[in-house]
Amino acid sequence: MPLIPQQPPSVDTIIAAHAALRAQGPLVQCLTNTVSVNFMANVLLAAGASPAMVDNPEEAAGFAAIAGAVLVNLGTPTDAQVRAMRLAVQAAHSLGRPWVLDPIGAGVLPWRGQVAAELLAQRPTVIRGNAAEIIGLAGLGNSQAKGFDSSSDPADAMPAAITLLKYATCVSASGAIDHVVGKVQNEHGEVSHHLLRIAGGSALLPRITASGCSLGALVAAYAAATGDGFCAAAAAHVHVALAAEYAEPQAQGPGSFLPAFLDGLDRVDASLIRAKAQVESVRL
Amino acid sequence: MPLIPQQPPSVDTIIAAHAALRAQGPLVQCLTNTVSVNFMANVLLAAGASPAMVDNPEEAAGFAAIAGAVLVNLGTPTDAQVRAMRLAVQAAHSLGRPWVLDPIGAGVLPWRGQVAAELLAQRPTVIRGNAAEIIGLAGLGNSQAKGFDSSSDPADAMPAAITLLKYATCVSASGAIDHVVGKVQNEHGEVSHHLLRIAGGSALLPRITASGCSLGALVAAYAAATGDGFCAAAAAHVHVALAAEYAEPQAQGPGSFLPAFLDGLDRVDASLIRAKAQVESVRL
Amino acid sequence: MPLIPQQPPSVDTIIAAHAALRAQGPLVQCLTNTVSVNFMANVLLAAGASPAMVDNPEEAAGFAAIAGAVLVNLGTPTDAQVRAMRLAVQAAHSLGRPWVLDPIGAGVLPWRGQVAAELLAQRPTVIRGNAAEIIGLAGLGNSQAKGFDSSSDPADAMPAAITLLKYATCVSASGAIDHVVGKVQNEHGEVSHHLLRIAGGSALLPRITASGCSLGALVAAYAAATGDGFCAAAAAHVHVALAAEYAEPQAQGPGSFLPAFLDGLDRVDASLIRAKAQVESVRL
Repeated sequence: MPLIPQQPPSVDTIIAAHAALRAQGPLVQCLTNTVSVNFMANVLLAAGASPAMVDNPEEAAGFAAIAGAVLVNLGTPTDAQVRAMRLAVQAAHSLGRPWVLDPIGAGVLPWRGQVAAELLAQRPTVIRGNAAEIIGLAGLGNSQAKGFDSSSDPADAMPAAITLLKYATCVSASGAIDHVVGKVQNEHGEVSHHLLRIAGGSALLPRITASGCSLGALVAAYAAATGDGFCAAAAAHVHVALAAEYAEPQAQGPGSFLPAFLDGLDRVDASLIRAKAQVESVRL
Repeated sequence: MPLIPQQPPSVDTIIAAHAALRAQGPLVQCLTNTVSVNFMANVLLAAGASPAMVDNPEEAAGFAAIAGAVLVNLGTPTDAQVRAMRLAVQAAHSLGRPWVLDPIGAGVLPWRGQVAAELLAQRPTVIRGNAAEIIGLAGLGNSQAKGFDSSSDPADAMPAAITLLKYATCVSASGAIDHVVGKVQNEHGEVSHHLLRIAGGSALLPRITASGCSLGALVAAYAAATGDGFCAAAAAHVHVALAAEYAEPQAQGPGSFLPAFLDGLDRVDASLIRAKAQVESVRL
Repeated sequence: MPLIPQQPPSVDTIIAAHAALRAQGPLVQCLTNTVSVNFMANVLLAAGASPAMVDNPEEAAGFAAIAGAVLVNLGTPTDAQVRAMRLAVQAAHSLGRPWVLDPIGAGVLPWRGQVAAELLAQRPTVIRGNAAEIIGLAGLGNSQAKGFDSSSDPADAMPAAITLLKYATCVSASGAIDHVVGKVQNEHGEVSHHLLRIAGGSALLPRITASGCSLGALVAAYAAATGDGFCAAAAAHVHVALAAEYAEPQAQGPGSFLPAFLDGLDRVDASLIRAKAQVESVRL
């Protein structure tokens, strides 16, 4: 059973999650698309986690037993990689290991849409996507997605995100203001839904490829470090937003933003989170 | 039927093509090699297009119907990716969607050479390669290619390039001075061949991997935006040359050239094209 | 038969190896993991070699006959890539072409461990890994590897490395101080084992992904240029260490270290090697 926290994440719990990430350096197994794989590994290393991209069917389940968390990203699936995803996710589910689903293109392309639907049955800890992908995954209608970079307003994805909470403990939709919805359970066992609006970041983030994919991997790293999917998603979004804010004034464009963003992931610390995190919490 | 322009591309049509690219942000489906895939996506994003690397046989044809253009690059083909290439290219051809062939290694390695020959039957809008690759693809003799980085003088590839115009509306051979040949049709329906020599760029461009591959993707992006393969190739070559010229004085070597080149792709605009493009046009 | 040198590598032979690399620009065939493939190609280009990532079963053996050396890296093997590895390595072995094995994860994951054991029978010229991987490959017990980034002390891997000299002419274990062991044969045909301890480098090197993988490819490039595996490993380790030392003072973190490290690989020259290489040689 995934952990459902008693409180929604706050700046304090995000700072504690960051300290746990740095102390543990969790190992994250990424089954991801070919575009993101190098950058994602560098993002995890810069943030303080340890990446391993074991994504063949021969090894995926065995490695899920070693890893602290598993990320499944549907960006460029192959037949063999999809078999590996099923095996890794079954292993993670049966071992109680957190795993994160990034359903790129699932609402646009039927083959991977079917794969995503299957994987949902294994109860991802967190589902992360852009607004169009969250809408597409929930099957709530046309997402007007243009390719994979589309950004519908995350606020428009909230009904879809809440629907997906029947599978996951937390669902996040990235955009100008990231929207993260998750479950909270009080001492009487009553479950409520909370929304975090996380502001900040940089307009250059969507100008570099795999920034969203790498955010998904960082959610998995935080989930490994904390066991709490809602807090993990919040902490990863804040971490990425602050790193982007560090990078933007140093960048001359999207190219020079790339190394500065990795530097920023390395630099984020408790005092920066305390000073700069923009997190608004709403009970739904 | 692919569009054959009435005039060869000029600086004015290249500026108009750039404006169209920026206005439309065309979606480009890339079936490309593993070395290039991340950099190519960043090149497309920096230039103003939208990348999607859908390259499995289950989805390639379906996505070609969504994309504005398709790029096929033979750098690291697998059996499954080749099946996806065939399907994507058939879909593009039957839908009248532009597509670009980058025949890396086709003259050196028989298996992919056979694949390239098959794909030619689906009439690429543009064929882009270095001089050795264009010579190899045309089967005009030994290309003296050393691996995939060889640069025979593009001028030596002109007979091969002209031979390949029976398949494509435009063929480009990259090198110190890029050579782009294409068809022009006058008001009486008479077709003539024109050569553009595009100078500029930087000696650091061939020192970074996938710069040529990414140029191929940018040709596809411009073809999606303009519908005119000859103009697309010219505009993409000019765009890359100017971005490289922006980057070179900022670089300490090939490593720092990489982010600066992406910044340059973002910065190229009408006034820079007007001031700096070096395009010489010759009727053959 | 692989060349066994009469003397262990010295700074003079490393300088000569570097001159040979720059003069020849050897073509290196890399069958490597998806995380490393782009960075590895840029590392080879920056250092002065020419990369080609031909890793499908249809072409791998044929290309090994063209390449100057072959690198096999087990980071993200697929069934098809493993078939290509077997074919490339058989071709390299039968042609007397140098090849390098990087056994990532071979001690942790049984499937690739079996593949690594098979490949050893084809006598790699050099085996390169971190300490945990060398220990894992030799089967000398548990390596306490955490994922693929672990760094046991290379000194602890020396018994394992010496065991592996029955397969290879040289074995290197990377770490804070790299340990490179190799065979030397005197004029009477007597073989002895020598250890080089190579110091320097930067604490930022393990903070970027694929730095070790790329070092393996550079070993292959030097082996192509010199024919001497022991010297190749020593030269590649020194080249990487000096490039990292060039990069570190220019970097604000792991992100900005990346381009600066590539610049450093380009800048290393005879005078820098003479002034800065830290190589200690010990007869075992």
